[in-house]
Amino acid sequence: MTTNRQIIFKSRPEGWVTLDNFDIREAAMPDVGDGDVLVRAIYMSLDPYMRGRMDAAKSYAAGFQIGEPLQARVIGRVAASRNADYPEGALVFGTLDWADVTLVPGGKGLKKIDPAAADVPLTWHLGALGMPGMTAWVGLGFTDPKPGDTLFVSAASGAVGQIVGQIGRLRGCRVVGTAGTDAKVAYLTDDLGFDAAFNYRAAGDDVLGALQAAAPDGIDIYFDNVGGPILEAALDAANRFARFVECGMISQYNLTREETPGIRNMTHVVRKAIRMQGFIVSDHADRRAEFDAEMIDWLKAGKIKYRIDVAEGLDAAPAAFIAMLKGENFGKQVVRISAED
Amino acid sequence: MTTNRQIIFKSRPEGWVTLDNFDIREAAMPDVGDGDVLVRAIYMSLDPYMRGRMDAAKSYAAGFQIGEPLQARVIGRVAASRNADYPEGALVFGTLDWADVTLVPGGKGLKKIDPAAADVPLTWHLGALGMPGMTAWVGLGFTDPKPGDTLFVSAASGAVGQIVGQIGRLRGCRVVGTAGTDAKVAYLTDDLGFDAAFNYRAAGDDVLGALQAAAPDGIDIYFDNVGGPILEAALDAANRFARFVECGMISQYNLTREETPGIRNMTHVVRKAIRMQGFIVSDHADRRAEFDAEMIDWLKAGKIKYRIDVAEGLDAAPAAFIAMLKGENFGKQVVRISAED
Repeated sequence: MTTNRQIIFKSRPEGWVTLDNFDIREAAMPDVGDGDVLVRAIYMSLDPYMRGRMDAAKSYAAGFQIGEPLQARVIGRVAASRNADYPEGALVFGTLDWADVTLVPGGKGLKKIDPAAADVPLTWHLGALGMPGMTAWVGLGFTDPKPGDTLFVSAASGAVGQIVGQIGRLRGCRVVGTAGTDAKVAYLTDDLGFDAAFNYRAAGDDVLGALQAAAPDGIDIYFDNVGGPILEAALDAANRFARFVECGMISQYNLTREETPGIRNMTHVVRKAIRMQGFIVSDHADRRAEFDAEMIDWLKAGKIKYRIDVAEGLDAAPAAFIAMLKGENFGKQVVRISAED
Repeated sequence: MTTNRQIIFKSRPEGWVTLDNFDIREAAMPDVGDGDVLVRAIYMSLDPYMRGRMDAAKSYAAGFQIGEPLQARVIGRVAASRNADYPEGALVFGTLDWADVTLVPGGKGLKKIDPAAADVPLTWHLGALGMPGMTAWVGLGFTDPKPGDTLFVSAASGAVGQIVGQIGRLRGCRVVGTAGTDAKVAYLTDDLGFDAAFNYRAAGDDVLGALQAAAPDGIDIYFDNVGGPILEAALDAANRFARFVECGMISQYNLTREETPGIRNMTHVVRKAIRMQGFIVSDHADRRAEFDAEMIDWLKAGKIKYRIDVAEGLDAAPAAFIAMLKGENFGKQVVRISAED
């Protein structure tokens, strides 16, 4: 490489993100100063929370800056180093640019990856063992899952949902998922062991009917990744003392307040004595070791599977991000920027 | 009395309750059989939850039956008894008919009142020491109030809200209330010691602006009695890790799903890591003794005040109930059906 391709945040989206919000720039390869680490990106993670960083309004993550590269969780290899902690060739993880390479001054924020730690594909460090896996594990913990509880998961074949459902099964729950294509629904029941699943798009205006058919005894736990009409249906189908964990509301991220279909049946929260808990996984970083221990055991025992959706090449990242916001990905979305070796 | 007036549930309301939903009937005085207790009503409590009992759809309380007397929490005096546990003249409390008298077979469900227990007006057994007081105490307990927290209360001069605010002050919170008239707002700050209050009706479309002016540092706790647009404003004004307790949603009880203004900013629950807890006080009856002990101490020490709104005479009950649902009462609504002695 003689130049470094970077995907630039060109303009803020109003509503849906479009390709016009991105630009690509060929920058000079950066100089590596004393203590600095230059990382060549291998896999980059695309996640729904990044949509919030595109808004001028403050999100829980710091906002992207117009004219600068976007950033994402990246697994890469040290390409050049003047920092003994991160020798050339080491596998590292960090929040880096959407780019071929990122210069990390002083190696700040980088974490070394030991690929032997949990005999899993490298990409899983962005998935089951990464932020999505920990999100599933922390979030489900808020709901006190008990054997026999019916657990409902939305965006169930997505980065977080896949893990939620499988942990739910390991905790003894009856697990019901929803996703937006028949292929995803088949994956949930045939490959991941969900007890039931349905296609919410095929259900049209009767999401509640489809949910009730899949969960005839009602739901005790709802792991919400989408908000909107599916949240309304979950409130309708909830049993008394149901626990809702509010992890994400991807159906609403591209809508203005005026466009958002409001939740009209919040009275169920009172009448059914429902608890709703919102959370951001980064507030729970102190539980990392506990999560790693349990998840690595599950992975080594083959108890958790994980599907990824790989977009090929840095150029493909903007379109892959837009597709993910529309639910067109199948599994956790990553971008392969360069070869593993 | 030679006959017993009863208010009958004539027809189910569709939307707002009207006087046409009620009828009055003159029934014969009931015979008192072995073990039975005949109670003459003194004060009857009118509470928002009763609206839910008028719907055919199941509420958390058993539904009212068309053609039968409505029921309410009543303080009365034993008028005739063939039950040694409830001698004639004893003050009792029970869920009785909207009527001059109710026959209680076997005295079932009646509770004797010791008016000396907490040197307070008799009506307070329907208020500060009754279901509304315990609702306030139990509900606020879910929010872990800490000194310095900003606590926001809606329907703040109502049966539950008055107590919530005063307990909040006793717990060291900064307390902000909202109510629907200037007189109620003045009562909150001048008589009950709220730190700030505002008239949500006067705020019109800018409830959020009025709330932010009253709570410039945001809110840490929201005690929700109303749902709807004030809940939306509370979500907007909430600080990270805010705790919402969902006690009631009176703004929505008379609306169909289609008429209900939905909550469009639930993404704050995720982004601000908000916890919302719905509850029904009757699920927490095991905490009665603990509540009584703390509340009686506060009442005896003059630390809790309580305003009631008395409608005079059984005939006035339907109109008083309708007015309460519209927020036209000022303080906890009761009906005086007969004299205390």
